[in-house]
Amino acid sequence: MVPVLDQLRSALGPRVTTDPSVLDRARCDRSGHAASAPPIAVVRAQSVEDVRATMRIAHATGTPVVTQAAMSGVAGASNAGAGEIALSVAEMTRILEISPDDELAVVEPGIVNAELNAQLAEHGLWWAPDPASREIATVGGNIATGAGGLLCAKYGVTRDAVLGLDVVLADGRLISTGHRSVKGVTGLDITSLMIGSEGTLGVIVGATLKLRRLVAGDVCTLTATFSTVRDAAAASAAVTASGIRPAIMELMDALSLRAAHDLLGLELPADGAALLAIQTDGPDAAAEADGIARILAGHAQDVSLTRDREEGEHLLRIRRAMHHALSALGSTLVEDVSVPRSRMAEMFDEIARVEREHGVRIPTVAHAGDGNLHPNFIFDGDEVPDVIWAAADDLFRAAVALGGTLTGEHGIGVLKARWLADELGDDQWQLQRDIMRVFDPTGILNPGKVFVDAE
Amino acid sequence: MVPVLDQLRSALGPRVTTDPSVLDRARCDRSGHAASAPPIAVVRAQSVEDVRATMRIAHATGTPVVTQAAMSGVAGASNAGAGEIALSVAEMTRILEISPDDELAVVEPGIVNAELNAQLAEHGLWWAPDPASREIATVGGNIATGAGGLLCAKYGVTRDAVLGLDVVLADGRLISTGHRSVKGVTGLDITSLMIGSEGTLGVIVGATLKLRRLVAGDVCTLTATFSTVRDAAAASAAVTASGIRPAIMELMDALSLRAAHDLLGLELPADGAALLAIQTDGPDAAAEADGIARILAGHAQDVSLTRDREEGEHLLRIRRAMHHALSALGSTLVEDVSVPRSRMAEMFDEIARVEREHGVRIPTVAHAGDGNLHPNFIFDGDEVPDVIWAAADDLFRAAVALGGTLTGEHGIGVLKARWLADELGDDQWQLQRDIMRVFDPTGILNPGKVFVDAE
Repeated sequence: MVPVLDQLRSALGPRVTTDPSVLDRARCDRSGHAASAPPIAVVRAQSVEDVRATMRIAHATGTPVVTQAAMSGVAGASNAGAGEIALSVAEMTRILEISPDDELAVVEPGIVNAELNAQLAEHGLWWAPDPASREIATVGGNIATGAGGLLCAKYGVTRDAVLGLDVVLADGRLISTGHRSVKGVTGLDITSLMIGSEGTLGVIVGATLKLRRLVAGDVCTLTATFSTVRDAAAASAAVTASGIRPAIMELMDALSLRAAHDLLGLELPADGAALLAIQTDGPDAAAEADGIARILAGHAQDVSLTRDREEGEHLLRIRRAMHHALSALGSTLVEDVSVPRSRMAEMFDEIARVEREHGVRIPTVAHAGDGNLHPNFIFDGDEVPDVIWAAADDLFRAAVALGGTLTGEHGIGVLKARWLADELGDDQWQLQRDIMRVFDPTGILNPGKVFVDAE
Repeated sequence: MVPVLDQLRSALGPRVTTDPSVLDRARCDRSGHAASAPPIAVVRAQSVEDVRATMRIAHATGTPVVTQAAMSGVAGASNAGAGEIALSVAEMTRILEISPDDELAVVEPGIVNAELNAQLAEHGLWWAPDPASREIATVGGNIATGAGGLLCAKYGVTRDAVLGLDVVLADGRLISTGHRSVKGVTGLDITSLMIGSEGTLGVIVGATLKLRRLVAGDVCTLTATFSTVRDAAAASAAVTASGIRPAIMELMDALSLRAAHDLLGLELPADGAALLAIQTDGPDAAAEADGIARILAGHAQDVSLTRDREEGEHLLRIRRAMHHALSALGSTLVEDVSVPRSRMAEMFDEIARVEREHGVRIPTVAHAGDGNLHPNFIFDGDEVPDVIWAAADDLFRAAVALGGTLTGEHGIGVLKARWLADELGDDQWQLQRDIMRVFDPTGILNPGKVFVDAE
C-alpha cells in the first residue's frame, strides 16, 4: 500500500505539511497536556472536499485523525500524536450566508467567534456563545466542545445556538443534520449529538447558526467585595433567586482575587476577600442593576455601580486579568465543574476542604450566574503531579455528589476521560461508546479521547 | 416458555389489563390512524420498577413494546397493534421535586402539562412547552415527540426545556442522562437524542425540567384581518423582521377562518380573508403591541388591540375554535411542515398550488412566529385516500425545497415514515437507524414507527 503520507500529498498537495514546528504545535492545546510525539502530518483543509479527501485516505489506511482549529481547548481533546493525521479546519473561515430575516448564519468551522460577531454586528445580529477565548476560538471548536462562556445564564450555551451541521463521516461521506426553521423534529437529533462530541463522531465542516438580535439599551456594571467567598456565593445565589437575570455574573475567590491585584499592581485586598462582577444589559439594565445593588448590599462590604460602558470595562479588568494572574502563580490544571446554582456555596466549602486535606492551592473563578466553577490547581513543573490528580479526583466527586457534573464547558478530552464512567455509570458509558462506534466503526476518529477503556 | 401475558400478569398483577375496550383505545392516537388489531395487553405502570419489569419480560420474550400516555399524538407514533405490549405511563404523574432556586422540577412522565403548570405557578414558575393539547398532553409525550406549541419563537421548544432524563432501556436497565446544572457537556448529549425519539430508544420514566419564572406584566392581544393569506404571511414576517418577539403569533387562512366563523355562528369573513392573532407579554408588552399595530397597519384591513386579558381571550376564541371547526369539515389529515420564517408566504403559495393541482381542500393554520404550518387535508370517510397522500407528498417536497422540514412538532410516527429518508438522505437515515439499533438491538421498541424500511 502507498504510505499514508504519500497518499495525502498526492491528493492534497500543498495542504499537507510535515514542517517539524507545525507538527510540534499540533501536539498541544492550552491544557498544558501534549501528545508525547508529533503527528504524521498536518492537513490544512480549505474546503469540504479537502476534508473528505483526507477522511477517505484515513479510512482506507486505518489512520487516526484528530480534528483541530485554534488549539484553544483546555482538555487536550485536539492534541494529535504519533501515527495520527492532524486535520486542521482553521483555514475554512468563510461566512456563506447571513439571513437577518431568519436570524441565522451559515459558516465554515474555522471562523473565530470575535470575527463572526464583528461581521454579524453590521446586520444588527450576534451569536451568543462567548467563551473567554472568543478572540481566538473558532465556531467549529465551540461546537465540538459545547462551549459555554460568560453569558450563558441569560443567553444560553452553544447547544442552544446551532440549528444544523454539515458533517464529514469517518469514511468521507457528507451528511447535513438539523434544519433552518425554528422548529424541526424530523428523525433523531444528530445536531445535538454532534455538539460536544469532541471529534469522536465526525468532522464538522459547516454550521447553520441560530443568531440573536443585538441587545439595545444600556450596559450597567457592578462589582462588590465580600469578606468571604461563601458570602459572595450566597449573594450571587440571592441574585439568581430574585429572578433578575444579569448578562454576566462572575465570582473570584480570595486566591484568584489577590493574584489579579498583584498582576495589576493594585493594593492587595483583605485576607479572604472575594469579588463579584456583574453586568446587566437590555432595556431594563438600569432597573435590574439597581435591584441587584439592593440585594448585594445585604451581603457585601462595598458595592460599585456604573451605567457607563467604559467605566464598566474598568471594573471588569480584574476579572479579565485572571488568566495571566493565575499563570503567574505557577503551572495550572484548570478544572471546570458545574453545580446547581443553589449548591455553589457548598462547592466552595468543598474546594476549601480539598485544599486543606491535600495541601494544595486552588484559586477559583466561577461563572456564578450558571454555577460553573473553574478551580485552578497550582503546581510546579510541566507534569501534573499525583497529589494534584488526587485533589482533582476528590473535587470531581464532590461536585457530582452535589448534583453537579465533571465539565460545564471544556469537555472531557484526555484530561477527564478517567472520570467519565464514574458520572455516566457503566451502562450509559457503554451505550455512548457504542453510539460512537456507529459513527466510527474502525476507531479512527480522535482515539484515546473521551471514551478510553479503563486499564 | 411461559406466554408473555402470563409473565406480565405474574410480575405486574392488576397493572395488566386485557379489557377489550382498553385494548381498543390503545390502538389509536388522535391522528385518525389506528393499528389494525389490538395489542396483547395494556400495562398501566405506576412506578419505574413496573416499567423495568415490563421491559425485562419484553426483552426476554422478544415482544414489541409501544410506550403510551395521553394518546394525544397526531402522527400515530404511540398506536399499539397485534402482538405488542402497550406500556402506559399515564398513571406515573408525581412531581418529585420543585426547586425555585435552581429553576428546575423533577417529574414522572405521565403528568399533564396543564396540571404541572398549575402546581408550578404556586412557586412563581412555569414549564414553557405549550402544545395546543396542553390540557391533556403529558410531559413524557412532549419529550418523546419534541413538542412545540404556540410560544416557541419567544420561549423555545421542548428541547430547550429539559435538563436530564431517566430512561429504561430495552432490556430493563435504567440510565440517568444529562445534568441539574445550567451547563454540562460530560459525554454525548443523550438527553437531546431522546427528545423526539418517539419511543424508539427507550422508555422515559423521569425528567428534570428546566423551568422559567412566571412572566410579570401585561398581556396585550391583537387581531388583524387581511384580504389574502399572502398579506397575512407578509405582515407576520414583517413583525419578525422588526425584532419584536410576540409570545404568540397565529395565522389562519381563508378556509380555516371561515370554518371557525361558521362554528361560532359569526358573520362570515370576506372571500379569501385571513387572520393574524398576536399576543405580547412581559414588562414591554404594551410598547411591543403598539409597535406591532403600527407594522400591521401597512398590511391589514383592520387591526384590533386590547390590553385586557379577558378581552384578549375573546379575540383569540376564533383560533381556539380551530380544531373543532376543521373537524366539522370532514375527516382531516393534519400536517406539520416547518419552514424558515422568511419563506412562509411562499409556502402558502405552494399550498394553494397543491390544492389546485390535486383538487383538494387544505385549510391551514400556522404558528407564524416560528414558521410552523399545519395544513389540514380534508377528506371523506375513515381511510386517507390516495389523492390526499399524493397531495401531502407534493406539499412535503415543497416544504423541504423551501429549506423546511417534514415535521415541526408532531413527529414522524407512522404517518410520515415514508418521507423520512427523502429529507435525511440515505446515508443519514441509515446512520440514525444504526444508532436506534444500539438502543434496541432486537427491535422491540416501537417497531414500524419512524424508521421503516422501504418496500
